[in-house]
Amino acid sequence: MKSGKKYVYFFAANKSDGKAEMKNLLGGKGANLAEMCNIGIPVPPGFTITTEVCTEFYENNRNYPAGLEEEVAATIKKVEEEMGMTFGDPNNPLLLSVRSGARASMPGMMDTVLNLGLNDVIVEGLAKLSGKPRFAWDSYRRFVQMYGDVVLDLKPVNKEDEDPFEVIIEEKKKAKGVELDTDLTTEDLKELVSEFKQAIKRETGRDFPEDPMEQLWGAVGAVFGSWMNDRAKRYRALNNIPSNWGTAVNVQTMVYGNMGDDCATGVAFTRDPATGNRKFYGEYLVNAQGEDVVAGIRTPQPVNSSTQSDDSQVTLEDLMPEPYADLVAIYQKLEEHYKDMQDIEFTIQQGRLWMLQTRNGKRTAEAAVRIAVEMEEEGLIDKKTAVLRVSPEALDQLLHPMFDPKADKITLAKGLPASPGAATGRIVFHADEAEEWAAKGEDVILVRIETSPEDIGGMHVAKGILTSRGGMTSHAAVVARGMGTCCVAGCSAININYKAKTMSVGGSTFNEGDWISLDGSAGTVLEGKVPTIDPELSGNFSTLMEWADEFRTINVRTNADTPHDSDVARNFGAEGIGLCRTEHMFFEGDRIKAVREMILSDDEAGRRKALEKLLPYQRDDFYGIFKAMHDLPVTVRTLDPPLHEFLPHEAENQQEMADEMGITLEEVKSKVAALHEFNPMLGHRGCRLGVTYPEITEMQARAIMEAACQLTKEGVKVFPEIMIPLIGTKAELSDQKAVVRATCEKVQEEMGAKVDYMIGTMIEIPRAALTADKVAEEAEFFSFGTNDLTQMAFGYSRDDAGTFLPEYVQKEILPDDPFQTLDQEGVGQLIEIGVQRGRQTKPDLKVGICGEHGGDPRSVEFCHRVGMNYVSCSPFRVPIARLAAAQAAVRES
Amino acid sequence: MKSGKKYVYFFAANKSDGKAEMKNLLGGKGANLAEMCNIGIPVPPGFTITTEVCTEFYENNRNYPAGLEEEVAATIKKVEEEMGMTFGDPNNPLLLSVRSGARASMPGMMDTVLNLGLNDVIVEGLAKLSGKPRFAWDSYRRFVQMYGDVVLDLKPVNKEDEDPFEVIIEEKKKAKGVELDTDLTTEDLKELVSEFKQAIKRETGRDFPEDPMEQLWGAVGAVFGSWMNDRAKRYRALNNIPSNWGTAVNVQTMVYGNMGDDCATGVAFTRDPATGNRKFYGEYLVNAQGEDVVAGIRTPQPVNSSTQSDDSQVTLEDLMPEPYADLVAIYQKLEEHYKDMQDIEFTIQQGRLWMLQTRNGKRTAEAAVRIAVEMEEEGLIDKKTAVLRVSPEALDQLLHPMFDPKADKITLAKGLPASPGAATGRIVFHADEAEEWAAKGEDVILVRIETSPEDIGGMHVAKGILTSRGGMTSHAAVVARGMGTCCVAGCSAININYKAKTMSVGGSTFNEGDWISLDGSAGTVLEGKVPTIDPELSGNFSTLMEWADEFRTINVRTNADTPHDSDVARNFGAEGIGLCRTEHMFFEGDRIKAVREMILSDDEAGRRKALEKLLPYQRDDFYGIFKAMHDLPVTVRTLDPPLHEFLPHEAENQQEMADEMGITLEEVKSKVAALHEFNPMLGHRGCRLGVTYPEITEMQARAIMEAACQLTKEGVKVFPEIMIPLIGTKAELSDQKAVVRATCEKVQEEMGAKVDYMIGTMIEIPRAALTADKVAEEAEFFSFGTNDLTQMAFGYSRDDAGTFLPEYVQKEILPDDPFQTLDQEGVGQLIEIGVQRGRQTKPDLKVGICGEHGGDPRSVEFCHRVGMNYVSCSPFRVPIARLAAAQAAVRES
Repeated sequence: MKSGKKYVYFFAANKSDGKAEMKNLLGGKGANLAEMCNIGIPVPPGFTITTEVCTEFYENNRNYPAGLEEEVAATIKKVEEEMGMTFGDPNNPLLLSVRSGARASMPGMMDTVLNLGLNDVIVEGLAKLSGKPRFAWDSYRRFVQMYGDVVLDLKPVNKEDEDPFEVIIEEKKKAKGVELDTDLTTEDLKELVSEFKQAIKRETGRDFPEDPMEQLWGAVGAVFGSWMNDRAKRYRALNNIPSNWGTAVNVQTMVYGNMGDDCATGVAFTRDPATGNRKFYGEYLVNAQGEDVVAGIRTPQPVNSSTQSDDSQVTLEDLMPEPYADLVAIYQKLEEHYKDMQDIEFTIQQGRLWMLQTRNGKRTAEAAVRIAVEMEEEGLIDKKTAVLRVSPEALDQLLHPMFDPKADKITLAKGLPASPGAATGRIVFHADEAEEWAAKGEDVILVRIETSPEDIGGMHVAKGILTSRGGMTSHAAVVARGMGTCCVAGCSAININYKAKTMSVGGSTFNEGDWISLDGSAGTVLEGKVPTIDPELSGNFSTLMEWADEFRTINVRTNADTPHDSDVARNFGAEGIGLCRTEHMFFEGDRIKAVREMILSDDEAGRRKALEKLLPYQRDDFYGIFKAMHDLPVTVRTLDPPLHEFLPHEAENQQEMADEMGITLEEVKSKVAALHEFNPMLGHRGCRLGVTYPEITEMQARAIMEAACQLTKEGVKVFPEIMIPLIGTKAELSDQKAVVRATCEKVQEEMGAKVDYMIGTMIEIPRAALTADKVAEEAEFFSFGTNDLTQMAFGYSRDDAGTFLPEYVQKEILPDDPFQTLDQEGVGQLIEIGVQRGRQTKPDLKVGICGEHGGDPRSVEFCHRVGMNYVSCSPFRVPIARLAAAQAAVRES
Repeated sequence: MKSGKKYVYFFAANKSDGKAEMKNLLGGKGANLAEMCNIGIPVPPGFTITTEVCTEFYENNRNYPAGLEEEVAATIKKVEEEMGMTFGDPNNPLLLSVRSGARASMPGMMDTVLNLGLNDVIVEGLAKLSGKPRFAWDSYRRFVQMYGDVVLDLKPVNKEDEDPFEVIIEEKKKAKGVELDTDLTTEDLKELVSEFKQAIKRETGRDFPEDPMEQLWGAVGAVFGSWMNDRAKRYRALNNIPSNWGTAVNVQTMVYGNMGDDCATGVAFTRDPATGNRKFYGEYLVNAQGEDVVAGIRTPQPVNSSTQSDDSQVTLEDLMPEPYADLVAIYQKLEEHYKDMQDIEFTIQQGRLWMLQTRNGKRTAEAAVRIAVEMEEEGLIDKKTAVLRVSPEALDQLLHPMFDPKADKITLAKGLPASPGAATGRIVFHADEAEEWAAKGEDVILVRIETSPEDIGGMHVAKGILTSRGGMTSHAAVVARGMGTCCVAGCSAININYKAKTMSVGGSTFNEGDWISLDGSAGTVLEGKVPTIDPELSGNFSTLMEWADEFRTINVRTNADTPHDSDVARNFGAEGIGLCRTEHMFFEGDRIKAVREMILSDDEAGRRKALEKLLPYQRDDFYGIFKAMHDLPVTVRTLDPPLHEFLPHEAENQQEMADEMGITLEEVKSKVAALHEFNPMLGHRGCRLGVTYPEITEMQARAIMEAACQLTKEGVKVFPEIMIPLIGTKAELSDQKAVVRATCEKVQEEMGAKVDYMIGTMIEIPRAALTADKVAEEAEFFSFGTNDLTQMAFGYSRDDAGTFLPEYVQKEILPDDPFQTLDQEGVGQLIEIGVQRGRQTKPDLKVGICGEHGGDPRSVEFCHRVGMNYVSCSPFRVPIARLAAAQAAVRES
């Protein structure tokens, strides 16, 4: 039964069923092909089978919806009419490509079949029609090889094995005494086709299908099937793409860049994807198919002089001026139309230009910022759009250290600056090993001749990627830029031996495990470890951040425990401190002795004596931080960790402590044992310590207030916000607030100063969120501690979850690691309940977040949506949070 | 400014402002005095100052509300008119008592002042009026002593010190060469009064007030003040009485049981409070004040022959037949009126009976059951009321083991059977020590000459209480019965030496730490440890439980892991198993070896091999349990604890394991280290194990289903409910359900049997409760695991919370230990959300609870209220849950 749904969308210049807005239905590629046709761009005609078919295919046990077959057949007719060629007709054969195309780009993850529609009879027709028998048979050879691999599944049994088709080709070349594929004759190619088919039959038991329509359905099925292959699933897991989006299948008339020397194929960007520079930027190969460019097998040539890096290169502009002029006109039209930098694929068949694809181009963070700012200045987009154009997460690349220009550097080799940044790590030669080493905490540089989609896991964990082959649009380069990972590509000076696990360059040989550094912005490979410096943030970056601040409605604070961190964060635009952890200060120098003395005391008097010693240290700490953050609020959290964290657990250190404190080892051991907890995360910590030992809270309140009073008297404006952690009940807060309040009032009286201060609480215990209406009766502000809230809402110990969380993400039991991206579905409910009930009691209650999530863009958007006053994150993530907050506000408006 | 509120309520026979329903305002004592007056009972007239005054007193920094003084003065006038006497008039003095009276009984916790209104002048008037100067001066002496202690605060400095007033009396007796107080002459008493006043002035700097009105306000203030004394606060914490209830103050005309031999005072119960037997039961003292009975200083006499335990005792019935007859008429009237067993206090002044108090009498569980059932049979109450009359918690006394009647017992002594039950423990002589020993896990018997309110903490932790002095209504007896703690009182054969910490009886001497046993039902003290047996449940108990089951609307299941526990629970009325923990079965005998083999396996194949060995054991376990629970549902939880719990952690046991398994100690150690977790409660456990190792879930599902199929084929009806623990997301349940479903279907096919089974989940992670609508899409039932839910909602590790939870309860930061009584405010919200959202998805979703709370009466009421289908608790708590569920249903109706 046909459902009435339209499953197949035809496209041809000015005759498309679809359009750009149909990306969810047609996939990114399909929607753009239709859209290009709509604006009159020359696109080989074809059709798109929708993503809905993919979804239904998997929902119905891999069966196609009823009516699909008829719809495909009818649409092929339209393509035939458009091209004046007939699918399966030896006299005038229409040949097709079959490609995947999901809503989100998944480069190289899914399967493709080209030259479909050839068989032993039609190949002869093609030879006759084109007048190029070798081209015809090479196309047929490629088709059988591709189809055999992708559809009939003749693949290497083990990963290390060579491709069975390549083995046959190598044997053929040996037998014929030639070196290059291009030296093989038409007769050789005919033999290869026949040997390929025999190998397929022998190894898989399946006949190669001679019927073009059978070929088509085989290929369509393979593409849908590839949506669920392991590497696609893994890519989706890494990139947060839901499985149920599905992929579309694009079936399109073949055009040939490899029909002779008046043919070419290439890819280009409308602006430089590495720097954002406004110049047309691309690469091409003469007499080649598109796959040859992307695969990085032959090193391509620049399309024009502005892309050219050395004079020996022949540009397309020089070689084929007419099609190049068409290409320029088209790229300008496309950028004007899409109002964004485009990544385009083109083929020139016998002098005629065909556009195969356009899409928004991936770019580095630097390029994204520059393109956004410049397009606004060009009047192409407005400020809001510009702010939305840069992924906050990508800013991370710009905020990280660069190599110190003054450092001594030994340059080993120069390649292409494929993805900017600075990386230092130990050499590994296989993606699997990169993963293994990284799991052990090693920084690694993945060194490969070229990369392929199988390497994706290793690329993800590597600090940098180095390839000896391939251009700026090779797999390594594209993927690395997407990941924000530093990459030097096509560094041909380097000789890689996978077996020996060595890399030689100049006269030197480097082994697995040796240290090298990569400068992805300069394209250089450097010897050893090179020191780094903090980046300068100015120019376009500053402009973009200014715009972001215009739209942003929530504040961004930082988590900082020292005056230095406070300064860094202020420079990055922090508007206060959202979390100052006081316990870090307990470990430094002599303080730890006083802390231990306090812990060992049997009574309050002894504890007070020890705390007396700690007081001046803490006061000095707060003095420094408050001063650095003058005029801005500083939230100070009272002591949080369990006391045993301050005692040594190794026998040696215990002896040392015993000696220092003049007590026996037994006494130390017995205190450690007494403080041992089965689940310290859920133990005697946070405000529970303050309730048991109010004198600790009192000392901390005194230190805060003495520092604040001192600065006030010096004319510095300070706004301390004293925050009680781990509250589960209103009564706990009442108890601690009374201690803090009494101390603060007393200190102010003693010092004759008046300080504007608040007393509030963290909401990090599920029960506190659920009873926030009551807690708010005592609290002057809330700060959501989403780390602990996530631990308790999920029942996950962050320290232990490593044993199962990665598997959970991989198995799609969780969409993300909830410690990195806030779980809006579950933990988010507790936050929404907390905010809403807190404000029910106190409509003006100041609410913020101070977990790690405060610097995660999706989490920031959530915080904006639930009406928080601020987010707080680590200093280096402050700009990311500012941009994310701006985007949230723009999207909402 | 007077608020218009009425603060003072007058009472006198047939002339009261108050009534029984005003308990919250007038306190229990005040409301009942008013009510007794209303039904014409002879009560000495007086008035009640309301509990609101107490609350306002504390809210307003210990100031009385405006207008109170005038209201009190006006009401004193009414009392004077009623009695024909005048407060402060030496010629015809009205004397008053001042007593506390809270909403809930708090025996002995607060202060009392008697004989108020005497001074150096008035005492002479009283002497003249009564014709008994010694009585007058003795009353005055008592008044000064009591007032000095309670109001003027002349108390022993250290707990061990003697009472300063008693020291003066002892010196006086020595000086006069007499032994007993009663041997002191009127002149001696005059000297004592003078010496008391001097001591007060010397020690406290305060003059004893001669003005009766000043005396009155001093006493009223002291009673209100005593609401916040330490022992009252502690009592409230232990008994869940909120501070803001406040106490009322009852000011009442003094009547005297100590005016001569035609006077008496006594307390009585309308039925036997120990057994429930329908007989009038009481004790009295001739020529004494009421306090003398309760304090246990003189051993009182029985009121009638049915209370008499030996012929030497003189009954009130024989001694004063007329007032006794009045007393009988009154007690019958009171029981008829209140429709419950009454605890009454009376005084006979010169042959005239006055009732001082009536209240519902405390009783043992045995008595409560019998009285409830018999009153229903007598037509006094209906079944619903009968069901409400017994505290479910009290049933615990009846469900616990008793001494084996066949065991050899050496009876050391016989005392009064003050509170039934069997207790075995080590002797301690001080309440503080009882607390210290109990904290270390010791079972203790608290042995005291007599107990006082200061001992309350030690009494609470003791397994049993033994006193050498005092009657059935002594402090020890009343408190022990309230607590359900076994008590033998007034065992005068025992000689206690506090200093030497010894107790001698017959020729033997027992030291602190020696073991004894108490039979609280027989009143005997037994040597050493005596073995116990399970109780028989029949007669009244069965009747009451039948009635409970008539009203109850939710089911009661049990938590049981063995066929034996299943049998016990079935006998107690369990309607299925709500939680069968499979991991307990992993530890027995050879199984642990197979479990360890599984844990040590490096791959799935190895694990499967080891699981193969476990399968028959698990199948046999389930076979036994399913058979014992035939016709009833059995919920089996799949493996829950982290794997390291199955490995040895002591070096010695690790070596043993290494030897047994033929591996090195290092291998064992390294596996233990690999499985170590910082917070195992939040680690790799529950369904997280099943997701990582689906073969474990598979083996368990197979064992369950093979056992179920086998029994089905044998004609036994089984209803397995397979429960996946620790679900936080729907996806986890989907994953595990798929494994269980596939296995169960396969086993049924293999064995050719059809079993009615369900797959559901525990809701014990806050996130699961919050996303219950989604989880319910997969779950066929929910069972709330309130232990873990409480741990995570509060962020408390149950294993570690002992370091701060007791302090939290004591400081009133928490009303209860949330692991014993469900925290309805916080955790309860998660449960309500979980039930409501689960049923939103599946309206008929079966929902239960299987945490420890399933046997806690208040928690059961909550479960009833939120619409659960069942509660599940330990076998011995099944009847408690049945009764609690019935009460919840009755209260709701």
